[in-house]
Amino acid sequence: MNIIEIIEQKRQGRELTGEQIEYFIQGYTKGEIPDYQAAALLMAICLNGMNQEEILAMTMAMANSGETLDLSDISDYVVDKHSTGGVGDKVTLIISPIIASLGVPIAKMSGRGLGITGGTVDKLQSIPAYRTDISIEEFKNNVKEIGISLISQTFDLAPADKKIYALRDSISAVDSIPLIASSIMSKKMAAGANRIVLDVTYGSGAFMKNVSQAKKLAKAMKEIWQGKDKKICCVISKMEQPLGYSVGNTLELIEAVQALHGQMAEDLKEVVITMCIQMLKLADRKESDAQLENEIWEVIHTGKAFHKFVELAQKQGADAAYLYDLNRLEKAPIIVPVLSDEKGWVKALSAEKIGKISIELGAGRKNKEDEIDRRVGILLNKKMGDFVENGECLAYIHASTAEKIDELVEKVKSAYAFSSKEVAKENVIYTIL
Amino acid sequence: MNIIEIIEQKRQGRELTGEQIEYFIQGYTKGEIPDYQAAALLMAICLNGMNQEEILAMTMAMANSGETLDLSDISDYVVDKHSTGGVGDKVTLIISPIIASLGVPIAKMSGRGLGITGGTVDKLQSIPAYRTDISIEEFKNNVKEIGISLISQTFDLAPADKKIYALRDSISAVDSIPLIASSIMSKKMAAGANRIVLDVTYGSGAFMKNVSQAKKLAKAMKEIWQGKDKKICCVISKMEQPLGYSVGNTLELIEAVQALHGQMAEDLKEVVITMCIQMLKLADRKESDAQLENEIWEVIHTGKAFHKFVELAQKQGADAAYLYDLNRLEKAPIIVPVLSDEKGWVKALSAEKIGKISIELGAGRKNKEDEIDRRVGILLNKKMGDFVENGECLAYIHASTAEKIDELVEKVKSAYAFSSKEVAKENVIYTIL
Repeated sequence: MNIIEIIEQKRQGRELTGEQIEYFIQGYTKGEIPDYQAAALLMAICLNGMNQEEILAMTMAMANSGETLDLSDISDYVVDKHSTGGVGDKVTLIISPIIASLGVPIAKMSGRGLGITGGTVDKLQSIPAYRTDISIEEFKNNVKEIGISLISQTFDLAPADKKIYALRDSISAVDSIPLIASSIMSKKMAAGANRIVLDVTYGSGAFMKNVSQAKKLAKAMKEIWQGKDKKICCVISKMEQPLGYSVGNTLELIEAVQALHGQMAEDLKEVVITMCIQMLKLADRKESDAQLENEIWEVIHTGKAFHKFVELAQKQGADAAYLYDLNRLEKAPIIVPVLSDEKGWVKALSAEKIGKISIELGAGRKNKEDEIDRRVGILLNKKMGDFVENGECLAYIHASTAEKIDELVEKVKSAYAFSSKEVAKENVIYTIL
Repeated sequence: MNIIEIIEQKRQGRELTGEQIEYFIQGYTKGEIPDYQAAALLMAICLNGMNQEEILAMTMAMANSGETLDLSDISDYVVDKHSTGGVGDKVTLIISPIIASLGVPIAKMSGRGLGITGGTVDKLQSIPAYRTDISIEEFKNNVKEIGISLISQTFDLAPADKKIYALRDSISAVDSIPLIASSIMSKKMAAGANRIVLDVTYGSGAFMKNVSQAKKLAKAMKEIWQGKDKKICCVISKMEQPLGYSVGNTLELIEAVQALHGQMAEDLKEVVITMCIQMLKLADRKESDAQLENEIWEVIHTGKAFHKFVELAQKQGADAAYLYDLNRLEKAPIIVPVLSDEKGWVKALSAEKIGKISIELGAGRKNKEDEIDRRVGILLNKKMGDFVENGECLAYIHASTAEKIDELVEKVKSAYAFSSKEVAKENVIYTIL
């Protein structure tokens, strides 16, 4: 077997065998296959695709490229969730304590943010002293003791994926269904969950630009996740405007805590409730959706969900006093309102543009090594369907410096588009597969 | 401008601007763009193609990536020739002295062989002491004095092409029309010729697998070569079986000398005469094809062409006595006949297989750094359309060692296929564009 023949085969649009895919993944992970040959193969995959068997082989090869975690000693089922990417997506912070307080164990490893998609780990670290890098033993013990632990990827989880992910980013091979599906599912497999709810996003702020693409991706991922005691559910949701009101790590943490107290923007609420119901179902809860929703609101209104979050934070070394008094969290030194030059209904609010501005502010990473500023970001005041008067506040920019602030104000304005006719607020969730 | 956007654009099948192509070529030549990004872009070009403007921009950028040669002080026209690749192709050795002896200056830089395609430089070096690495000044002086010089690429001709060519080889991005066309034409432009005859080959032993591909490649190259005083002609020819009877450097030199004495295999004769006529026409000779062919045979039969070859060899430092007595050239120590197990007419003789066997024997290079053995190769005794008796000799293997010789004998046999019905000999040249 040799890599040039494998590239040639995919270049001609022919199917690769499981052995060929395994050979590529192992060779590339070990550094025996150079970046340039991997780049050529990935580009050929982007353009000529992969069938389901190839995607499955790719997923398995990446999942097995490093250590794998066994969580079967915690519970029969460990429910995980994942989003294919969104701006302002703080859903994990909200639903994890809700689900845990309903008796379903949450043992979740999250990534750091890259690009316009924020990372759960960065948001958790906005709670002073929260440790995301605890040992696997401590991680498992926490889940056993309090039913929840949220950490970063502390061990060498799917190293092949890590290498391929970085390369894809530098060769414009990101929005490919076989590559996205195998990347996500290989990490989930290696991380030991057996039940998983996926939020598959589409729209200008997501990798998948339309519903049909999102459905294809969902289908590919569902077909990978088959076999004994494995369950999966895909929620297809729109990502045109940021989810909720906040974009930026501390700002999103604050919004998540408010949500755990029951205050949620409409779109955020829709996603949170839907994802929670699906996760409970995967945990073999047989009640109707309405009954499950009641239970969810009960743990919110009784404070159980918030206290589970406090318990989690304390267990991971954080000072929970910050969660009781959010004003103590460090704020950005510069907070500037963005005032509207126009009057009308907001007909569009670009998630992509807001995401890019948040990176410029320092809330996200352009490169993996970048340091981020947890204080900065954008707090939206108006979203799609809202009416805006001329001079009314659209959003607040939270910045570390006043430098370039005028330019950023203009950029935030340009993320909005207005209509003189009333614009209906749309649902975010398209369907559940 | 950034390379990721350029890759993205070509990945989506969109046209690149001249500036983008220039940016890529310059950046890659200087080492500012890494191999893996170049690999991704080249694969995207292979799969999504390039239009004529893009191919022209690519050619110009590569031609201008290093030094360029000015031959305008030699003559108003310098006629060059190039083949897109064949097995047993010794045509340059034969037609260059013929054309020079008819008063048309030949100032040609040739490459070394890579893969199954032999290189003219390797064949010239089979004449003991022939120097292919003389200075540009000496090269030009030789052309002025005796009307001919054949050398290797002694200076940094189109370094971008050199780098891209090597990369293409390692990522299976070889048989792409935009990449082949720009590679060949950039070298020709940098080498200073203004009139050029191209032998565009197709078939199992060539990069282009069929006539329509070969025509497309010819069309792309013709369109590049436009402008004041530039002339081009493409001969489309079939490369299914090796050209002539010999494959291997010294063996091909011997066949070339025999050809200059008038003894030529039918297929070789067809290509030699056609290429010569087209080169003379590009040198503004107005006679009819029949008159030109007469002149060609006259310089062969009077010995003028052979003596021009002797003069060339002497001028480049070689001992011409070897050309007068070919038996003095060093022979391979092992010469083994391949006897047929079958009876019938030869219906196929795979150029590709014979080419690969010649590499195994040591006549060609797998990698650029490989040393070659000029003595070894294959001397064919039977070609397509010939009748073969059981036990009759198909070919002779010239090897440096008896090791694996039985295996090679079997491989040569397997390059032949037989028919019980008579097989007509076919013309090699399909058309002239």
